[in-house]
Amino acid sequence: MSLWQNYLDAHEARFTAELLEFLRIPSISALPEHAPDVQRAAEWVAARVAAAGLEHVAILPTGGHPVVYADWLHAPGKPTVLIYGHFDVQPVDPVELWSHPPFEPHIEADRVYARGASDDKGNMLVPILALESLLKSVGRLPVNVKLFFEGQEEIGSPQIGAFLPQHRDRFACDLVLSADGGQFSETEPIILVGLRGLCGLQIDVKAAAIDLHSGMYGGMVMNPIHALVMLLASMRANDGVITVAGFYDQVRPLSAADRAKLAAVPFEPDALKQELQVPALFGEAGFSPLEASWARPTLEVNGIWGGFQDAGTKTVLPSEAHAKLTCRLVADQDPNAVVELLRAHIERHSPPGVTVSVTMLDAHAYPYLAPDDFIGNQVAREVLRELYGREPYEVRSGGSIPVCTLFAQHLGAYTASFGFGLTDERIHSPDEFFRLASFRKGQTAYCRLLERLGV
Amino acid sequence: MSLWQNYLDAHEARFTAELLEFLRIPSISALPEHAPDVQRAAEWVAARVAAAGLEHVAILPTGGHPVVYADWLHAPGKPTVLIYGHFDVQPVDPVELWSHPPFEPHIEADRVYARGASDDKGNMLVPILALESLLKSVGRLPVNVKLFFEGQEEIGSPQIGAFLPQHRDRFACDLVLSADGGQFSETEPIILVGLRGLCGLQIDVKAAAIDLHSGMYGGMVMNPIHALVMLLASMRANDGVITVAGFYDQVRPLSAADRAKLAAVPFEPDALKQELQVPALFGEAGFSPLEASWARPTLEVNGIWGGFQDAGTKTVLPSEAHAKLTCRLVADQDPNAVVELLRAHIERHSPPGVTVSVTMLDAHAYPYLAPDDFIGNQVAREVLRELYGREPYEVRSGGSIPVCTLFAQHLGAYTASFGFGLTDERIHSPDEFFRLASFRKGQTAYCRLLERLGV
Repeated sequence: MSLWQNYLDAHEARFTAELLEFLRIPSISALPEHAPDVQRAAEWVAARVAAAGLEHVAILPTGGHPVVYADWLHAPGKPTVLIYGHFDVQPVDPVELWSHPPFEPHIEADRVYARGASDDKGNMLVPILALESLLKSVGRLPVNVKLFFEGQEEIGSPQIGAFLPQHRDRFACDLVLSADGGQFSETEPIILVGLRGLCGLQIDVKAAAIDLHSGMYGGMVMNPIHALVMLLASMRANDGVITVAGFYDQVRPLSAADRAKLAAVPFEPDALKQELQVPALFGEAGFSPLEASWARPTLEVNGIWGGFQDAGTKTVLPSEAHAKLTCRLVADQDPNAVVELLRAHIERHSPPGVTVSVTMLDAHAYPYLAPDDFIGNQVAREVLRELYGREPYEVRSGGSIPVCTLFAQHLGAYTASFGFGLTDERIHSPDEFFRLASFRKGQTAYCRLLERLGV
Repeated sequence: MSLWQNYLDAHEARFTAELLEFLRIPSISALPEHAPDVQRAAEWVAARVAAAGLEHVAILPTGGHPVVYADWLHAPGKPTVLIYGHFDVQPVDPVELWSHPPFEPHIEADRVYARGASDDKGNMLVPILALESLLKSVGRLPVNVKLFFEGQEEIGSPQIGAFLPQHRDRFACDLVLSADGGQFSETEPIILVGLRGLCGLQIDVKAAAIDLHSGMYGGMVMNPIHALVMLLASMRANDGVITVAGFYDQVRPLSAADRAKLAAVPFEPDALKQELQVPALFGEAGFSPLEASWARPTLEVNGIWGGFQDAGTKTVLPSEAHAKLTCRLVADQDPNAVVELLRAHIERHSPPGVTVSVTMLDAHAYPYLAPDDFIGNQVAREVLRELYGREPYEVRSGGSIPVCTLFAQHLGAYTASFGFGLTDERIHSPDEFFRLASFRKGQTAYCRLLERLGV
């Protein structure tokens, strides 16, 4: 057995106790009254990484919740790895649904229950412990390491977009390992290769200056709700294909290999239908549900409103109607370019008799797709294959992880998601928990990953 | 000069004083605290028609605000005429915009200002005074007369639909004259021949049991807003033509004569565009604005809602989306049949992945179209031609007057609208007024009309 594994095993009890200590800090980034707790969590992390043997530990101001930096850069000629995680947590409401107080961690059946146990304190402590075990047992790290632990992930990292380009040199690296992620199941590992981007806009349709009587004016003036319906119907065909000119032009086509990888991921339509209580699934014609939700762009109306919404009847032609819509984007779509395509489409299709205006929403993220030869994913795949005894599924996510696209954009580095959360761990919900088996397995996995990256 | 005209002239000052007395009663039917005032107005009317010489005066309970009945039935072999009006009024809010208190009538420049002056107390007092002048001067009426004055018109006559069929014999008549109406201008008279009917329904689209993350599920499940948009877009083409199968089947086509009559009514599109502040008018392709709004059916969404309506962005696939829509109908459409057509269309066009339900709204009225040979309109036309020195325009209304359709349905009698309000008299608004010139002209007009109907 390796020196570092002996160290991990020998200090298991202390590591667990440290996790509980970390979980006791109510570092809820969304609530201003908990800002001092987020700061306290940053200080705890800074002290902990210093104790692990990292250097140049710094709590960096961002204008909001801070970022904790540290490094160990004594492996000349070896790659520089940036490890990412976050020490802030979600709010705990509804607190009455928790079986135990959310910030009094409770261990039962090898699981630790607390807010942040899985997302992300348990997961982000894992690489720190791996680094300590390597440094304290082997005496050195196989690669250069930098840490980027933030305190604002759960509120959408509002300051990181401006912070990162100001610290390009400090965070310069060859690849990123994200400790904020998970695996498919206890026995099935994954490699995450792609994320969707995002853009959005609001459409405001204005007709007459005031609401009109539908008897007196119905048949003479355009109803802004119908105008909005016409516009929205013109943007997406009934088979789910988006009909905005140019929308798919920059979409990288799915290769046969891509489709084979997605087809290999277990997916049970009937179970999903039952879970969501929908009579059928629905997506872009010609693509499987996973293809359509992970690797194809969408256009979805997130909200619509206009006219009379109360009980009963009001025979009114409303003065205004509104919709908010967002598009999920895939490589190589540019969110700004897509907004311009939407704007041009809306202008071209605006019906007579109304005034249509378009406002860009703040939703904005570039899509992310790691190349097949990205070393971080290649090595992660090998380590996971060894640890789980099977090939990882190659998955994408339909959502956006802004920090991944920020690292790609500002540091030119791709991210290997290397976390050990599981989907049943109730992140963001009452009774969040983390498997201590994952906690231990993750430490081993990080040591192996860093060793292989240093070969 | 006729005896009755002498009588009208001789009692002009008293009649005006009586109008002011009538206007001082705050008979707001919409406000429960004014129910005693509505009752007081009924008693005032009952006493006034008794004083005029009418018989069998009765205040009839309806379950809501009462109906005042009276008759004079001593003209054997002559037609029986039912005269309609209402003694309730609209609320007065915003009361601070009134130049004088709304129930303290104020005369200025031959106009009386008060809530209900034009709609409908001034107009409904007119035939009472005409009846008195005939009875007190000539000693008899040229036709049999019954009165139907209600106290719930401004709240949509909720009890009249049940009340009228229970009193079919009492109100049996050959034709109705409605004192709740107006003329085109001080110099241009009208004959109202048609009203649109109404039906409505609410569409509720249900997708997943809860709101879903648009990143995780966008592309896999139907968005209920898009489903609703698809349904609504399927019901009305971009040129305003309704595409619900069978919708136009029962519509009586406009004859060349009908279109010529509508084309003769003054209509200024530019003035309307400016008034409503719309860049263009819009209506069913192939029809003029007056044709489309008076003599063609419509389908209008009165309200739509679903998902996120606040500031900012929420990347949600909502669980539900809703719309309320009403159709204005024309002869010979049946509101129940149209609702069934809409229901069948919605069922046929419901997209996959959602559950769509349809609820009929309480909006419900049959369309009304008086036949060309309706004696009431023929005689009204002659009287108006004489009084105004020009041919009346033959107009329709895009709205519904439920009581007209109820009289047609339950009494088999058409209604000649014979009122003298004008569109600038701010009915339902602050500073409502009625021209005393119209008050006088109306009395003369009613005497002549009744005389001609008795020929």
